[in-house]
Amino acid sequence: MPKDSMPQAIAAKAALDPGGFALANCIRALSIDAVEAAKSGHPGAPMGMADAATALFRDHLKFDASAPDWPDRDRVVLSNGHASMLLYSLLHLTGYADMTIEELRNFRQLGARTAGHPEYGHAKGIETTTGPLGQGIANAVGMAMAERALGAEFGADLVDHHTYVFLGDGCLQEGIGQEAISLAGHLGLGKLIVLYDDNQITIDGPTSVSFSEDVPGRLRACGWHVLECDGHDVPAVSAAIAEAKRETGKPTLIAMKTTIGFGAPSKAGTASAHGAPLGAEEAAAAKAALGWEAAPFEVPADLAAEWRAIGARGGAVRKDWEARLAASSDRAEFSRRIARELPGGYDAAVAQARAALFAEPQKIATRKASQVALEALAPALPELIGGSADLTGSNLTRVPAVDSQFSRQEPGRYVGYGVREFGMAAAMNGMNTHGGVIPYGGTFLVFSDYARNAIRLSALMGVGTIYVMTHDSIGLGEDGPTHQPVEHLTSLRAIPNLYTFRPADAVETLECWDIAIRSRGTPSLLALSRQGVPQLRLEAGDENLSAKGAYVLRSFGEGRDLTLLATGTEVSLAVEAAETLAERGLGVAVVSMPSWELFEAQPAEYRAEVLGSAPRIAVEAASTYGWTRYVASEEDVIGMRGFGASGPAEDLYRSFGITREAIVAKADALLNGQA
Amino acid sequence: MPKDSMPQAIAAKAALDPGGFALANCIRALSIDAVEAAKSGHPGAPMGMADAATALFRDHLKFDASAPDWPDRDRVVLSNGHASMLLYSLLHLTGYADMTIEELRNFRQLGARTAGHPEYGHAKGIETTTGPLGQGIANAVGMAMAERALGAEFGADLVDHHTYVFLGDGCLQEGIGQEAISLAGHLGLGKLIVLYDDNQITIDGPTSVSFSEDVPGRLRACGWHVLECDGHDVPAVSAAIAEAKRETGKPTLIAMKTTIGFGAPSKAGTASAHGAPLGAEEAAAAKAALGWEAAPFEVPADLAAEWRAIGARGGAVRKDWEARLAASSDRAEFSRRIARELPGGYDAAVAQARAALFAEPQKIATRKASQVALEALAPALPELIGGSADLTGSNLTRVPAVDSQFSRQEPGRYVGYGVREFGMAAAMNGMNTHGGVIPYGGTFLVFSDYARNAIRLSALMGVGTIYVMTHDSIGLGEDGPTHQPVEHLTSLRAIPNLYTFRPADAVETLECWDIAIRSRGTPSLLALSRQGVPQLRLEAGDENLSAKGAYVLRSFGEGRDLTLLATGTEVSLAVEAAETLAERGLGVAVVSMPSWELFEAQPAEYRAEVLGSAPRIAVEAASTYGWTRYVASEEDVIGMRGFGASGPAEDLYRSFGITREAIVAKADALLNGQA
Repeated sequence: MPKDSMPQAIAAKAALDPGGFALANCIRALSIDAVEAAKSGHPGAPMGMADAATALFRDHLKFDASAPDWPDRDRVVLSNGHASMLLYSLLHLTGYADMTIEELRNFRQLGARTAGHPEYGHAKGIETTTGPLGQGIANAVGMAMAERALGAEFGADLVDHHTYVFLGDGCLQEGIGQEAISLAGHLGLGKLIVLYDDNQITIDGPTSVSFSEDVPGRLRACGWHVLECDGHDVPAVSAAIAEAKRETGKPTLIAMKTTIGFGAPSKAGTASAHGAPLGAEEAAAAKAALGWEAAPFEVPADLAAEWRAIGARGGAVRKDWEARLAASSDRAEFSRRIARELPGGYDAAVAQARAALFAEPQKIATRKASQVALEALAPALPELIGGSADLTGSNLTRVPAVDSQFSRQEPGRYVGYGVREFGMAAAMNGMNTHGGVIPYGGTFLVFSDYARNAIRLSALMGVGTIYVMTHDSIGLGEDGPTHQPVEHLTSLRAIPNLYTFRPADAVETLECWDIAIRSRGTPSLLALSRQGVPQLRLEAGDENLSAKGAYVLRSFGEGRDLTLLATGTEVSLAVEAAETLAERGLGVAVVSMPSWELFEAQPAEYRAEVLGSAPRIAVEAASTYGWTRYVASEEDVIGMRGFGASGPAEDLYRSFGITREAIVAKADALLNGQA
Repeated sequence: MPKDSMPQAIAAKAALDPGGFALANCIRALSIDAVEAAKSGHPGAPMGMADAATALFRDHLKFDASAPDWPDRDRVVLSNGHASMLLYSLLHLTGYADMTIEELRNFRQLGARTAGHPEYGHAKGIETTTGPLGQGIANAVGMAMAERALGAEFGADLVDHHTYVFLGDGCLQEGIGQEAISLAGHLGLGKLIVLYDDNQITIDGPTSVSFSEDVPGRLRACGWHVLECDGHDVPAVSAAIAEAKRETGKPTLIAMKTTIGFGAPSKAGTASAHGAPLGAEEAAAAKAALGWEAAPFEVPADLAAEWRAIGARGGAVRKDWEARLAASSDRAEFSRRIARELPGGYDAAVAQARAALFAEPQKIATRKASQVALEALAPALPELIGGSADLTGSNLTRVPAVDSQFSRQEPGRYVGYGVREFGMAAAMNGMNTHGGVIPYGGTFLVFSDYARNAIRLSALMGVGTIYVMTHDSIGLGEDGPTHQPVEHLTSLRAIPNLYTFRPADAVETLECWDIAIRSRGTPSLLALSRQGVPQLRLEAGDENLSAKGAYVLRSFGEGRDLTLLATGTEVSLAVEAAETLAERGLGVAVVSMPSWELFEAQPAEYRAEVLGSAPRIAVEAASTYGWTRYVASEEDVIGMRGFGASGPAEDLYRSFGITREAIVAKADALLNGQA
């Protein structure tokens, strides 16, 4: 933008709504100051979106800064998370108690609530973690779905709010953005309103370098209501939001033409305003051009008061809502759901399901065992919302209690996510941060790759998304190496704060499901088999042994000459091998390890006891890499050393040497090598 | 579809082009037979696309089955790879020598060329591995880009072919499909022609369960030329392809209404035709309805001859092309490129770049060292095509030799992929399988997650895609945990046949680049730092030490009391710690490990010598998990045990205990614990 045109642009925009423009300048000034102080960050996007944010917060947003956890608040998601100072400024200005001016001064410093990108849990008002582009809008789709489901269940008196999203070109370029858009359009999420910061700039320069599509046209083709306006015209944005709220059958995209770094005389409209501080000179020039005279991190009292009033505006509405809740016959159930507490009947359902398995042991695939577990638990859990990325019949995720389609017409309890693994995962994360529901969704384990960064964000945010991932090894057979996970268990175990479960039989599958349901602060991924396995746990008992992560499943012979460690479908193989070895007079313990993470959390003595001091062999139809946590060398692992192949499962197990015979031979070599 | 309507539909479609319909029935019959024999597979899609494939192969495709490697052949990508029998049938029928009837009989059996999904390298005519949905079309975009680049360089006499894609709803639902579509439309890839099998069915039932968008509208909004036709009307499909070829400025989507399982009286048009054999009864009924009387795996002689003639049709054109090549002044260079051989001047460029670093050591970030390496090597490699997923200034991937934009107007040597990591990776895979170019592309290491399954497919296919992934640890600082890789090195090392490089300084970075360039059968991923490191390799020499994967970089003191293993930016930290320990009289070896994969490939004696028998400590600013391959316990790793945080890099290293002091303290504890 030519230097001399910015003052004219400012004057023109300010004239449209002087009060709104002044409010927006508070955001711009704080964003400039914080980025300058941090010596890093993204000033351009907050400066460009400040007017639209003012229109939203001043004229529309249902919220009460003094009660940030109010369940029926509107949700705001900053999908272009690098614009974090927009959100932090708004939270500070409207009076969120934990977003002090000190936090803004400490932007991007270790320990501050004001991380480089918004981090869920760091401060109230941050509804989800954003930064990895495209996921914010997918989270928001999940929030809008949760709102619709809860609204249908509890009525509009208790649940009736909007989900607003800010996003930029990056979110629209990322494939997951399209997955979210397509799903939202399909489901007709009328309470989802997206403000598109169409500033024509990305990091590499003008968007025309890589992006030339007709975004409104694309969104309309996906069933969206699309509006267009000037993003610096506060009344125009406000009017567009009002119109968006009137359209209840379709999600709305408001495409706002904006200028990145609006206010900065030299850098506005250029990539140089995107990802680096303006610099002292340009910062001062921007403030001068905007007529901003306050000292850094200061806001004139009248504007500060006005923003505080905006933050308090929703108080009366919130109190009315609380009165309705207090008078509602749904009060207890609604409050339980929001508090993320499990219902009274849940423990009994688990106990009954356990008892049934001990009474009548099941020789089934663990994916089938997962279905059995869900059939038992889902009736006790009205908050469950199931789904699959178009693999329902393979994942076995649709059970009677959730057998109602979540569609445009009906907010049922089962979501057809389509072939959109990443969108599914991110939507489930949004449902979790929204609260009131517990989502689970299925795909093949190999396609955890497609959803991987959303799984990571489940873990980083600490939300209990449940991933049901079947066809967990070469055991899937003929579909071949593109569909056979090999490195996936190792790579999932590497993600902090994620439970990667690989249960060995029907009992462990139930136990892992139970842990997953209870773990509202940690995501769970169940790796489940296509092929059948015998039930190994036959002794009735109440203890959830899988909760220890690993345990001695069986001991054969006298003493312990050897320990076999295994997971999933290979545990029964280890048992068979142990039987053979015991016949030769060896003492062999078979340890089942459904969750390494939970095992690592056990006391050292327990771990030492389970692992024992005898030589150890590990058996898992997956990459040997990573197993040296528990065995001396990867040579001691019966597993995969490369990709799989297409063929019947039995042929593959034999071909890749994952057999009872191979375990026995390895044991011979290991024990003789020692002797 | 009602049982009685299929015979009428067959009669109606057959009447449009009896000859074409009969040819298509060969595909249908072989697909039915192979799936029945395998007792698993996907008959419905080949049956539904058989007519369109006949139109393409009979009337348009430029190919010669007797010369499947002809560089100027049209490419065919089956993006809906589960329809593999469509491709295998076509290859067999048109006379590809390695696709015998025995291969079809052994569909989905171990060792057969006919894997469940098409596997690149299993048979000629399989242009890329497909199955993971959406990636095939992205591969095809890369092929069309390679064609355009080579056509501009060598002229239409040598390079002038089309890229055809079959795809289904799944590819259009996956986000990567949209990334590919958007990029293709942006670049105006007029020689890309996509045949959309719009059969309204996915695994979970009718597409209306999850997909209700206006696909033609979406594609038009993305700059595509869209045609619509009846996919069972062979002349109509052929006419649409002809029209698509006339549109040279835009890619074309031919949306074909089809019936999945066309010909099967009961299962056609239903999800039951999708992913399971028809069953003997329905298979027989389908053949009867189609008027197919031949025995299983047999094709009537006249039809077989006709298909063979189609496979031979391109012979004359191919010979003309060979004559042009023989007469061309570009013959040597073109042939070198197709043979994937490096040019004569390349070795000298490497040697000169090495010498420059030894002459003037560089204290720079390894991302900057990567730029330095590229600046030195790219001028010698006209086949390099660079790019970044909108992080050029951060990845430092744009160097003078490739400083020309690959755009709609100009097939330059640098691609602005946009914020589309997955699409970029898959397009690069397609460029590689096309041949003639060597693509590299950049993003942040954490976003390897977004591209992960395409990285996996690089490895599975064995193509030398080069991933330049910067900001490789908490060292990126303020952007925070969403942008800080922690588990990524471990999870990438778990992928078979992938080189994960983490060079320690400018010399190692050059060495790793050199290995990556030479590795045409293995993909390489360079994990590079944002922050500066000293040059540690100071002794001039020709040997590429990184090619050994790991080596003793420095030895301090007498003998070896301790070995410090480290990678990347932490190697200099290890050297500092070793200096301190040596001052205390200890003998310490510092081992730099830029590539675990290459180290594992060394002889056992070399590995033992490098690792030594003294206690070992590992230092890497990443997950400790996985390091027990080389150290006794994760306790002996100075690394990350959870996610990172937002803050200046130095604060983070201190906060997470990755410091010289921590290494020294760990050494004290380890050695004293032993004493």
